Amino acid sequence: MPYVNIKITREGATAQQKAALIRGATDLLVDVLGKNPATTIVVIEEVDTDSWGIGGETVTERRKGV
Amino acid sequence: MPYVNIKITREGATAQQKAALIRGATDLLVDVLGKNPATTIVVIEEVDTDSWGIGGETVTERRKGV
Amino acid sequence: MPYVNIKITREGATAQQKAALIRGATDLLVDVLGKNPATTIVVIEEVDTDSWGIGGETVTERRKGV
Amino acid sequence: MPYVNIKITREGATAQQKAALIRGATDLLVDVLGKNPATTIVVIEEVDTDSWGIGGETVTERRKGV
Amino acid sequence: MPYVNIKITREGATAQQKAALIRGATDLLVDVLGKNPATTIVVIEEVDTDSWGIGGETVTERRKGV
Amino acid sequence: MPYVNIKITREGATAQQKAALIRGATDLLVDVLGKNPATTIVVIEEVDTDSWGIGGETVTERRKGV
Repeated sequence: MPYVNIKITREGATAQQKAALIRGATDLLVDVLGKNPATTIVVIEEVDTDSWGIGGETVTERRKGV
Repeated sequence: MPYVNIKITREGATAQQKAALIRGATDLLVDVLGKNPATTIVVIEEVDTDSWGIGGETVTERRKGV
Repeated sequence: MPYVNIKITREGATAQQKAALIRGATDLLVDVLGKNPATTIVVIEEVDTDSWGIGGETVTERRKGV
Repeated sequence: MPYVNIKITREGATAQQKAALIRGATDLLVDVLGKNPATTIVVIEEVDTDSWGIGGETVTERRKGV
Repeated sequence: MPYVNIKITREGATAQQKAALIRGATDLLVDVLGKNPATTIVVIEEVDTDSWGIGGETVTERRKGV
Repeated sequence: MPYVNIKITREGATAQQKAALIRGATDLLVDVLGKNPATTIVVIEEVDTDSWGIGGETVTERRKGV
């Protein structure tokens, strides 16, 4: 029954990589807490680098930085 | 003052259907808890089927499944 | 498969009221979008009035306001 | 280490405005709570006006309203 | 830089189990997407069984069900 | 109409500090994007250090670390 939300920057994650994240996160909940995979939901959200900040800067700015 | 976040797979929900979800969720908070609708926010987020997992698989994979 | 998150201030919602929110939100997704209720998750989170702000003030302050 | 999520309607916020939100939210956590900016994450999510409701109506409807 | 939010019912997860979830989710992002673990945040939120619904019922009700 | 969610570790933030975060976040949305403060919601959520991970470790572990 768990719900997992993974937010990453939108930088070309493939359908295969997303499927691997979903499988891995579901397995983790099963292995660590014995949760039922059938009702485990994993939602991946990709966010533009202009809209993601760390250290007070957008990721777009950091990528350009020296 | 409540905040409701509804996440669904992106599969063609129409503007009318979204409006119905917003009206329904707002009414629910008013009816059950007497909340003020004027400050009740409902946000609908649609997620690609490649990015939504259940049972350890993406919805894209499940739709293809036999 | 939808996921609904309802955030309200912690002000004594009863188990019956929470059950009514869960039933109502699930029915809404079934009625409007034909979603499967068996995999529809609804999570209610209650937040202290000190930690909820609207109009730039906490709800605690507003309740005291004149 | 804080995590800040800002949801707004998608109505043309520029990269500069998003950068200002990220800088401002990070500074706020540093100033008020002494948090470390280097690990403060700010994520901005823009939502279509059809998918954002307040007062039981979508923002699209309200903008048209008389 | 990813952000992972894991929501589970509050049913006695130990500090060791939470640490295992955090390690596992971080490793997953590193392995699948090559993300930097130093800025990967994982937040676990536990929710009372009265406040978690699936299939239109609270988990409290389901646990009692026959 | 924006919605801001601030997640921090539960380490004794006072009601005054939370009020300052709410005021500051609301002002930020008004100043940068011209949003209406009356319908701007800010929700602060505090998370135990056992349930917050960064760098693959819980904050509890990091605080003990050498």
